[in-house]
Amino acid sequence: MAGNSFGKHFQLMTFGESHGEAIGGIIDGIPAGLNIDLQMVHHELSRRKPGQSNLTTPRKENDEVKFLSGLIEKDGQITTLGSPIGFIAYNNDSNSSDYNHLEKAFRPSHADYTYNVKYGVRDHRGGGRSSARETLSRVVAGAFAQQLLEKECKTQISAYVERVHDISMPNPPQFYEKNQIDSSEVRCPNPEIASRMEQKISEIKNEGDSVGGAIVMVAKGVKAGLGEPVFDKLNADLSKALMSLPATKGLEFGSGLSGTLLKGSEHNDEFASSNGKIRTKTNRSGGIQGGISNGEDIVIRLWFKPTSTILQDQNSVDSNGNEIVLGGVGRHDPCVLPRAVPIVEAMVAITLADHYMRNHSSKI
Amino acid sequence: MAGNSFGKHFQLMTFGESHGEAIGGIIDGIPAGLNIDLQMVHHELSRRKPGQSNLTTPRKENDEVKFLSGLIEKDGQITTLGSPIGFIAYNNDSNSSDYNHLEKAFRPSHADYTYNVKYGVRDHRGGGRSSARETLSRVVAGAFAQQLLEKECKTQISAYVERVHDISMPNPPQFYEKNQIDSSEVRCPNPEIASRMEQKISEIKNEGDSVGGAIVMVAKGVKAGLGEPVFDKLNADLSKALMSLPATKGLEFGSGLSGTLLKGSEHNDEFASSNGKIRTKTNRSGGIQGGISNGEDIVIRLWFKPTSTILQDQNSVDSNGNEIVLGGVGRHDPCVLPRAVPIVEAMVAITLADHYMRNHSSKI
Amino acid sequence: MAGNSFGKHFQLMTFGESHGEAIGGIIDGIPAGLNIDLQMVHHELSRRKPGQSNLTTPRKENDEVKFLSGLIEKDGQITTLGSPIGFIAYNNDSNSSDYNHLEKAFRPSHADYTYNVKYGVRDHRGGGRSSARETLSRVVAGAFAQQLLEKECKTQISAYVERVHDISMPNPPQFYEKNQIDSSEVRCPNPEIASRMEQKISEIKNEGDSVGGAIVMVAKGVKAGLGEPVFDKLNADLSKALMSLPATKGLEFGSGLSGTLLKGSEHNDEFASSNGKIRTKTNRSGGIQGGISNGEDIVIRLWFKPTSTILQDQNSVDSNGNEIVLGGVGRHDPCVLPRAVPIVEAMVAITLADHYMRNHSSKI
Amino acid sequence: MAGNSFGKHFQLMTFGESHGEAIGGIIDGIPAGLNIDLQMVHHELSRRKPGQSNLTTPRKENDEVKFLSGLIEKDGQITTLGSPIGFIAYNNDSNSSDYNHLEKAFRPSHADYTYNVKYGVRDHRGGGRSSARETLSRVVAGAFAQQLLEKECKTQISAYVERVHDISMPNPPQFYEKNQIDSSEVRCPNPEIASRMEQKISEIKNEGDSVGGAIVMVAKGVKAGLGEPVFDKLNADLSKALMSLPATKGLEFGSGLSGTLLKGSEHNDEFASSNGKIRTKTNRSGGIQGGISNGEDIVIRLWFKPTSTILQDQNSVDSNGNEIVLGGVGRHDPCVLPRAVPIVEAMVAITLADHYMRNHSSKI
Repeated sequence: MAGNSFGKHFQLMTFGESHGEAIGGIIDGIPAGLNIDLQMVHHELSRRKPGQSNLTTPRKENDEVKFLSGLIEKDGQITTLGSPIGFIAYNNDSNSSDYNHLEKAFRPSHADYTYNVKYGVRDHRGGGRSSARETLSRVVAGAFAQQLLEKECKTQISAYVERVHDISMPNPPQFYEKNQIDSSEVRCPNPEIASRMEQKISEIKNEGDSVGGAIVMVAKGVKAGLGEPVFDKLNADLSKALMSLPATKGLEFGSGLSGTLLKGSEHNDEFASSNGKIRTKTNRSGGIQGGISNGEDIVIRLWFKPTSTILQDQNSVDSNGNEIVLGGVGRHDPCVLPRAVPIVEAMVAITLADHYMRNHSSKI
Repeated sequence: MAGNSFGKHFQLMTFGESHGEAIGGIIDGIPAGLNIDLQMVHHELSRRKPGQSNLTTPRKENDEVKFLSGLIEKDGQITTLGSPIGFIAYNNDSNSSDYNHLEKAFRPSHADYTYNVKYGVRDHRGGGRSSARETLSRVVAGAFAQQLLEKECKTQISAYVERVHDISMPNPPQFYEKNQIDSSEVRCPNPEIASRMEQKISEIKNEGDSVGGAIVMVAKGVKAGLGEPVFDKLNADLSKALMSLPATKGLEFGSGLSGTLLKGSEHNDEFASSNGKIRTKTNRSGGIQGGISNGEDIVIRLWFKPTSTILQDQNSVDSNGNEIVLGGVGRHDPCVLPRAVPIVEAMVAITLADHYMRNHSSKI
Repeated sequence: MAGNSFGKHFQLMTFGESHGEAIGGIIDGIPAGLNIDLQMVHHELSRRKPGQSNLTTPRKENDEVKFLSGLIEKDGQITTLGSPIGFIAYNNDSNSSDYNHLEKAFRPSHADYTYNVKYGVRDHRGGGRSSARETLSRVVAGAFAQQLLEKECKTQISAYVERVHDISMPNPPQFYEKNQIDSSEVRCPNPEIASRMEQKISEIKNEGDSVGGAIVMVAKGVKAGLGEPVFDKLNADLSKALMSLPATKGLEFGSGLSGTLLKGSEHNDEFASSNGKIRTKTNRSGGIQGGISNGEDIVIRLWFKPTSTILQDQNSVDSNGNEIVLGGVGRHDPCVLPRAVPIVEAMVAITLADHYMRNHSSKI
Repeated sequence: MAGNSFGKHFQLMTFGESHGEAIGGIIDGIPAGLNIDLQMVHHELSRRKPGQSNLTTPRKENDEVKFLSGLIEKDGQITTLGSPIGFIAYNNDSNSSDYNHLEKAFRPSHADYTYNVKYGVRDHRGGGRSSARETLSRVVAGAFAQQLLEKECKTQISAYVERVHDISMPNPPQFYEKNQIDSSEVRCPNPEIASRMEQKISEIKNEGDSVGGAIVMVAKGVKAGLGEPVFDKLNADLSKALMSLPATKGLEFGSGLSGTLLKGSEHNDEFASSNGKIRTKTNRSGGIQGGISNGEDIVIRLWFKPTSTILQDQNSVDSNGNEIVLGGVGRHDPCVLPRAVPIVEAMVAITLADHYMRNHSSKI
């Protein structure tokens, strides 16, 4: 009942502390015979990598992933064998003594205290298992899932930063191509807003402070019929997937919060028939009705809190209950959202791939 | 891989269509030797029951639950045996012909279309499996979970209606006693706001329309240490539990959306030691840090859309792709929130009970 | 983590004590649109029913199963909806006081002592949850599974009594039609051996004693490719399924025990190609190689101990540790094998159906 | 639904093909704070290692396992963190061209054909995923499980070779210390029988043939109460665990096959009270009653077929359906049993550890 596995059919299990020997994972349940573009996997990893721009932590991480099993080269193509795909990324040699001052300290709004209570023992170096470094493994699995979905049903998943602190895109969520999103370092597809976001993050970084915001994810081309009522509804499983990411505060589907201020007669999505295809005229449902995809775009907004690590003095206590002042030292991510974009896409892809596989047997 | 089970240790599996023979479920994993107050279970069911007030649908449902196994009377007490608890509620004899006009129609923003695509066959009577009637089984399991939590660790869970359409409580989320919440039909603990909400719902009902809003849930006395990183974080599993409820649009933990507009220095919860106990001075984390409960109140806001069933004409299509006009006939719930309160509490209780049991073996 | 569910895709969860209100279960994961012959389900139940012949206990049980959900009548056919199938059989009104003498007693080789240690509380009436009455629910699910397998891939499953005590069929395992097997009360397809077995059971019954033996199961028409290495191999999951039945002592696949006395050169199944189909010339593998079905007959022998309930005095202790003599009173099954035949078929069918569904996505 | 995970609480997921980059796995659910003796883990691996004696294949494998996560050094002790333990063993550089002749061939009684049917693509080098090399990961997890069981409840698990071909130990199963078992290369604790077994294996090896036999496993000190009826009975889960091993043909619990030839009055285990402890006078139940451990020794006999790889010509077909003659070349294990001993112990330990953890919450 340990919690390091995700998915029922397309499964990911991960391991690794931030400053242990290595991190990695196993992907199980991917069908055999799927041609894999490993360059795409590495590209997704580069989008998550720390130090990719001035907006992120300058910390260097080793993001070089090696694949250990489950793949074979046939006729110049890398193909899945149907057996589990093991992968690994070694951690950098890091000087553990850098973290000595945190051995007993509980950093505010981090997982230090709760890990200590739960396990009684803790790897304090860089957050240990609670470090966001574990999301690297999610990006690997997500890249495989995206390739499966793309090949099997032309599903495309893309996410972008919609809001940083109080600077927000003016328009409602829509699908943007990844290259348009990646054209700014902050991963906001609106150049002007992107520029303002980047400036805001720079200011906050200089203050040694941090900010949060919102990411929008749109998946298009999703096959109708995904989702398993009544508990494994597609929106329920997507919520779990996304809320398992570090620093998340909440999420909305489709019309979301604003939709709850409409009346039923204003909110319902009427059906229409066009070219023999049944579609909804509007998409306030966000592509999911009764917990099952209806073929319209899936639209989710996910909120992130300001990063807990800041470079300012904070009051706290240590594991002996003594009150302490934690000084702000080192490096930090003033805003996690730009790097979270590929991670959000990954979790959506894994969840959709899992449901895509589960759906295979819903009818005779 | 079918989706009718919830939980890994404290498990619930449910069955039943709205107008089939019966609905019910099985609770597995509840420890032996727990004394159960069946009156409390029936009371929770009465809080969910349709027709309990003018605010809800006048539809009569049979909510009389019979317990079939897993319990034994010893010394005048009903006690769990450790074996699965089966329970059942027969459906009313209903005139299936009432639903003939819906056999091929897809009601806007209902699950009619998606069930049809997914399964190819559908019980159209009263929504079949997609009916909110299935939440009855969740309330039963939730009542057992609440008794387990109350007995084992004094955890109390209560939810209330914070907002109906644009009428909202003025104060931030806090814990209210259930009797205070239940003192108004709308289940809002602020009498003046409650009265305005009830008036709004009456107006909307007369228009044949519907409204949504927000429910706040606060759990106090939650043992620190619940939650299984990195995928089965407590907030992730609570999100799945709550987003599996019908008509949900999104949710927030702790400071939620408003917290994403603060800087890290404003948002972090500093630790303090008081009477040998480590506590946070503020609770913007909403009782969960790094996916694990920290002993502070768990605070969640859950949003509901306006009910899809309205008594007005709507454009739609049928399963042959013909455009139709669906007339509004029959009875409807103009606002599901008052009845959803015990269901929200139930899902939180089941999730906490599941994690409480899973946590037993986290350390030697 | 409780143990009342079986299967990962085609799932069965059961509930019920022998003398509680009712027993029953939920089948989840059966595909929608499968036409079901309910008469066949009831027929399988009649094959399991106590009191069907002089060879079994004269105890009367209510085996009338009601279906509560998941099925719909369309065009005169009962069809699966894709939603869970709930079912129930009420227990007879039974006089609980019949069991007063067993409230504290631990019957030798029953589950009384172990349930007491594990749960601390126990329903002593008729064995409670440990009663073989729970296998009724397995037969229901097995009947659905057999219909699925028959329809989807012409798989046929049949089992027969090969040995009672020291009376055994002279020939190696082979497939027999069910009507040939059922032509004797003991369910042995060889009339002469059947007659000797029946006489043996009568003698043993008169002694107030009991006997065990062996059941052979052969499944033909099994699709090649079922089984999920490396842990959920088809033989591994079949072993779990069968060894979860009461009174089982062991099992063999294919050549079994005798095969372990051959050399590799004698035991290997050579391949041959006939009419474009690859087949093995012999079937010592019992239809499974490397944990995956190869399309040949699956052949299993399952052993049962003599029933623990006997009508003779036995020494034992009670829950206070006092030594007692348990008198033999009441009714008993001198040999469970004839009634176990449909239960064995059911468990094999459920396991094959589960793997059939899981296999759907093994390759692109 | 892929099959590369085992266990529900103490979980193992493995990856790796015989001649891919590496094999390894993740152990999840092991409690935090358990001191681990890594030397013991490596010792168990050495007992499984090929080439350890003249009786086994001279093939050299790299069995050097590296631990990647989940452990921390505190005060000179290696301790579990409660997070998943990742581990890896790189495969030797091997000359893939050694296997070219097997690329399309189906070796008799191997998994070549079934993998081909199931996945459509196959890593033919050394058996790929179906190679017994994957059992290395089981031995790693089993060593952790044994340390957990030893520490928590003094459980000891040991297995030995009872029979090779037709040479068998004369006495019934009993517990032997590991060092006594390991004193012979064949891992039979009776020196005279061991010597005859070793001679038999040498003869068979010289013939280029192979033999099977039986391994007995005895676990003593097992806590009463392990096992989760009705499907996850301890004997059911042990059966699955053991029958998931390569080359297994069947198994018996307690009195096993010979017990099925007794009458109930001869077979039942009477209870007796001694020194306030309730024990059975005999142990025909093999330590499990009603699917739950009763505190007596768990006794299992597991049968293995003669190894499929032999050094003699065999008829077969290739993947195009052409009939071929497969020559016997290379190296082989004439008898897998001596090396299977630690693997059997590992699977029993993993299953018991899983149930030990699951049992924690069976009663209030």
